[in-house]
Amino acid sequence: MADVKVIQTVSEMHRVADQIRADGLQIGLVPTMGFLHEGHLSLIGRARRCADRVVVSIFVNPTQFGPQEDLEAYPLDFERDRMLIGDFGGDLIYAPDAEEMYPEGYASYVDVEGLTRHLCGASRPGHFRGVTTVVTKLFAAVKPHVAIFGQKDAQQAAVIRRMAQDLNLDVEVLVSPTIREVDGLAKSSRNFYLSPEERQEASVLYQALQKAKCLVADGERRADVVIGEMRELIERRPLAQIDYIEAVDTADLQPMEEFSGEILLALAVQFGKARLIDNLVVHTA
Amino acid sequence: MADVKVIQTVSEMHRVADQIRADGLQIGLVPTMGFLHEGHLSLIGRARRCADRVVVSIFVNPTQFGPQEDLEAYPLDFERDRMLIGDFGGDLIYAPDAEEMYPEGYASYVDVEGLTRHLCGASRPGHFRGVTTVVTKLFAAVKPHVAIFGQKDAQQAAVIRRMAQDLNLDVEVLVSPTIREVDGLAKSSRNFYLSPEERQEASVLYQALQKAKCLVADGERRADVVIGEMRELIERRPLAQIDYIEAVDTADLQPMEEFSGEILLALAVQFGKARLIDNLVVHTA
Repeated sequence: MADVKVIQTVSEMHRVADQIRADGLQIGLVPTMGFLHEGHLSLIGRARRCADRVVVSIFVNPTQFGPQEDLEAYPLDFERDRMLIGDFGGDLIYAPDAEEMYPEGYASYVDVEGLTRHLCGASRPGHFRGVTTVVTKLFAAVKPHVAIFGQKDAQQAAVIRRMAQDLNLDVEVLVSPTIREVDGLAKSSRNFYLSPEERQEASVLYQALQKAKCLVADGERRADVVIGEMRELIERRPLAQIDYIEAVDTADLQPMEEFSGEILLALAVQFGKARLIDNLVVHTA
Repeated sequence: MADVKVIQTVSEMHRVADQIRADGLQIGLVPTMGFLHEGHLSLIGRARRCADRVVVSIFVNPTQFGPQEDLEAYPLDFERDRMLIGDFGGDLIYAPDAEEMYPEGYASYVDVEGLTRHLCGASRPGHFRGVTTVVTKLFAAVKPHVAIFGQKDAQQAAVIRRMAQDLNLDVEVLVSPTIREVDGLAKSSRNFYLSPEERQEASVLYQALQKAKCLVADGERRADVVIGEMRELIERRPLAQIDYIEAVDTADLQPMEEFSGEILLALAVQFGKARLIDNLVVHTA
């Protein structure tokens, strides 16, 4: 396996992207913050199947972290990431540093209204502004035909899809299923923070989502009842601190009191240093 | 002269832009709100010299008008514009309608901080958010290599240059000199609103800028003195209502009290229905 080429500047990324496009090839982008897990690798596999050249970006984006969040502690292992990307079919790594992305005098931001009001948007003010801004920059630098995001970050995927459509970006946004551990815990770089005890308790997130799915399948339509049952289950785990549990319409991400159609059940729960998120889409039909 | 092709949808614009790029040709974009005058035509000429294919966009962008502004009255003459664009070397017109640009559920906006705080940014809240958002959309739709803006809208040009650089848009932003009437009045679609009396008085804008230039050339360095002289001159015209007269650093568009280096002298003055802007860059060296 050849070493995967690493690009660190916007200007070189533009040049390489133009060359790939001039050759008539399709570019697939997988944006990541590095410390890759099987979730990322499945996104790379998806990109491999949709595009001729797969670019994986690695950038721990400071503007999407709040001041009290885990930016400083965020795990990094560039050489391991580079090896994995090569093994799983990535062609290029785009890894600019913070100075390249946000030089002195930087002043431009992208906002998506509405969709960012609830869920993580409510508990992490400024987070989605950071995400939409950096993704706009990554799209502009890499010039992908298609970009792959994970369903684990369901709100992020919806926001980026809306943004790409609104801003007329010629990028197809695809969303790939969440990859889980055997006990159902969604794969996440932040699982790395979990102590053995926290790791064991964290499987309750998936159990709560499964329980909600069963309740809806059995005919329950009241959001407060479903959320109440989920909350009760999670609160039994002493190390779990619930940030939110919400049920929103998959179309506009606004809360639903009475379920009908497609509902996104989403939650964020803190275990020690790790703020974990997960979600499931359920249907009343 | 053949009829200039008109494109009205984002998807067709993407397709045509991709085709031009696949042919190895350079795209030049001249964004306009239509009702073209010699200022626009000089931008088209500049684009003609820098690019192989010139796209002129025509879109009266509602999001950059305030509720009390002249959106409804803004002059339109598409057939005249189309003829002029053909005569002056444009190859394509991109003219989406408001529904194509801002469909129901539209939610995404681009902001540039800092540079938008003074001048028109202060007197037209939301104006530059509308401008940066629509220009991002036009860049994404037309995929230009180069885009040409007019120096008459000096703040707009600075904001868009900042935005393109910040968001890593692979578009060269060029700024072309202001085109003036024989008495110095800057060409503007809004001059159309002026009554004969207002039109005659409006030449005072250029006179005030020239006076300021002379004062600075003669060694005056105090912003309040220069601005005071400009204000006095303009206030002698009974139909003129000053919106602002400001002196700002050309780099960051922040007000300067003591002149040094490059100073942007900029003003906005209302004559009846027409809010006119103009500016001049002066040097202390």
